[in-house]
Amino acid sequence: MSLLVIGTVAFDAIETPFGKTDKIVGGAATYAGLAASYFYDKVKIVAVVGDDFPESEIADFRAHGIDTEGLQVKKGEKSFFWSGKYHNDMNSRDTLATELNVLADFDPVIPESYQDCEYLMLGNLTPQVQQTVIRRLKDRPKLIVMDTMNFWMDIAMGDLLETIKMVDVLTINDAEARQLSGEYSLVKAARKILTMGPKYLIIKKGEHGALLFHEDKIFSAPALPLAEVFDPTGAGDTFAGGFIGYMAKVGTVNFHNMKNAIIFGSALASFCVEKFGTEKIKNLTDAEVSDRVQAFVQLSSFEIR
Amino acid sequence: MSLLVIGTVAFDAIETPFGKTDKIVGGAATYAGLAASYFYDKVKIVAVVGDDFPESEIADFRAHGIDTEGLQVKKGEKSFFWSGKYHNDMNSRDTLATELNVLADFDPVIPESYQDCEYLMLGNLTPQVQQTVIRRLKDRPKLIVMDTMNFWMDIAMGDLLETIKMVDVLTINDAEARQLSGEYSLVKAARKILTMGPKYLIIKKGEHGALLFHEDKIFSAPALPLAEVFDPTGAGDTFAGGFIGYMAKVGTVNFHNMKNAIIFGSALASFCVEKFGTEKIKNLTDAEVSDRVQAFVQLSSFEIR
Repeated sequence: MSLLVIGTVAFDAIETPFGKTDKIVGGAATYAGLAASYFYDKVKIVAVVGDDFPESEIADFRAHGIDTEGLQVKKGEKSFFWSGKYHNDMNSRDTLATELNVLADFDPVIPESYQDCEYLMLGNLTPQVQQTVIRRLKDRPKLIVMDTMNFWMDIAMGDLLETIKMVDVLTINDAEARQLSGEYSLVKAARKILTMGPKYLIIKKGEHGALLFHEDKIFSAPALPLAEVFDPTGAGDTFAGGFIGYMAKVGTVNFHNMKNAIIFGSALASFCVEKFGTEKIKNLTDAEVSDRVQAFVQLSSFEIR
Repeated sequence: MSLLVIGTVAFDAIETPFGKTDKIVGGAATYAGLAASYFYDKVKIVAVVGDDFPESEIADFRAHGIDTEGLQVKKGEKSFFWSGKYHNDMNSRDTLATELNVLADFDPVIPESYQDCEYLMLGNLTPQVQQTVIRRLKDRPKLIVMDTMNFWMDIAMGDLLETIKMVDVLTINDAEARQLSGEYSLVKAARKILTMGPKYLIIKKGEHGALLFHEDKIFSAPALPLAEVFDPTGAGDTFAGGFIGYMAKVGTVNFHNMKNAIIFGSALASFCVEKFGTEKIKNLTDAEVSDRVQAFVQLSSFEIR
């Protein structure tokens, strides 16, 4: 039994009002894999990098108990690179550069040892590639969580809708929920999206928390108010990884457990934004994670009889 | 012992994507007074109207148990009138007309029978008039809650800061908290504002809920996701009125009770936006209110051991 994470493993160069980085390690599978590893010890990744990707970073994955057999290293090629600059509000950003490199013809090979996958996290990628991974698993996983973004709605809506049909949980932000459904009200948007395939929809609202929709039920999770958001890159991937890692740990798929999973995912995401890149979420102790989860409990609990 | 509400009692003409109204009754004291009346039976209002204001509407206040001795009716003058049009997102609006009329030289007279005021709600008004009310009460109320808006920050910041010094709880929205503090982070904004006088700060975030700050504690309250927001006018006033009405009912001022008060205020505000003007909050049953509060409990509860 394992948790399979597919997504990018890549380089980012980030500029925020607090500073800027050279090329540092990023990518959806990096963040999601690291986050999931705090809750579940059989995390495996499928991704592709060039031979410019440092072996020491791959060793870091392994140090977190992450299986990297499915991480292809392409000789003589370069890793995916993204560069962006955040605005002062930290909620919007400009993309300065996107170099697909190895990602341009990524063929996600699933090692035989990965066929025990019970939990599948489809990190943000071409919907076609996400779908290929589902098709290449001999048994359908117990839980498929898919992250995506507006970019694919703009250029590959057909493929996206086909892939969405195949998953259990979709995670998108509020603007993307509106774009995907054509509804401004998030309640109406969720109702529509829940007819497209997923049984659960998570709408991520950044500093405003997240909403989970399932049948006629809604759960509203807070975000931890932070004095400083240092670098929001990877927060959504970290959230998704923490979410599915917690679900794999508890093992039963239901609304009750998903509410908790959202709190655990939010807790990890709140760490992610405190430093550049993966710096913070690479080096957490279990005590830090559980203290942060308790901060969420404190933040949102009230007693009405 | 009583709860005194000061604010506007006025006419509004409202246009939303769902329709438009002729002149209907509105005003901060109207919404806050009605909301408070669901939790506390000694609500008294101080406000001013012209003789164009229908006697039947004043009778409606009395039917809700609201004392109107402090509602001045100016012969031969006209009531305050505001007209606005909401944009499609319902979060922004254009003011089409503002006619101050009786409000231009409002002198808030406190009837002798109002001197038993223990809870004071300063609805959005000129900070100078809000301050006058505090000064005209012989005994300082046990709890003073003040609502205000960016307009006063633009044109009367000095007066506003002086009035803020005198209150216990300040309620403003996120943009206003940023404007008042000069800080983008709401945590930093709150820290600064809590040095300006209030011991409690409530930041209203509309569809994203509300945050309560006190010392180093934070409470995050959800907003009920609604399929349709019909008319947001008065939601903030209704929230504030429900908040202080609940505080008056429980009688002990502390963080724990304020968390519940925010939920009760949010529940009433969620009704307010379902119809034009005061239509919905004029006609609620206790069962409807308590069902709605339970919906908030359901919405935000999770169990992590």
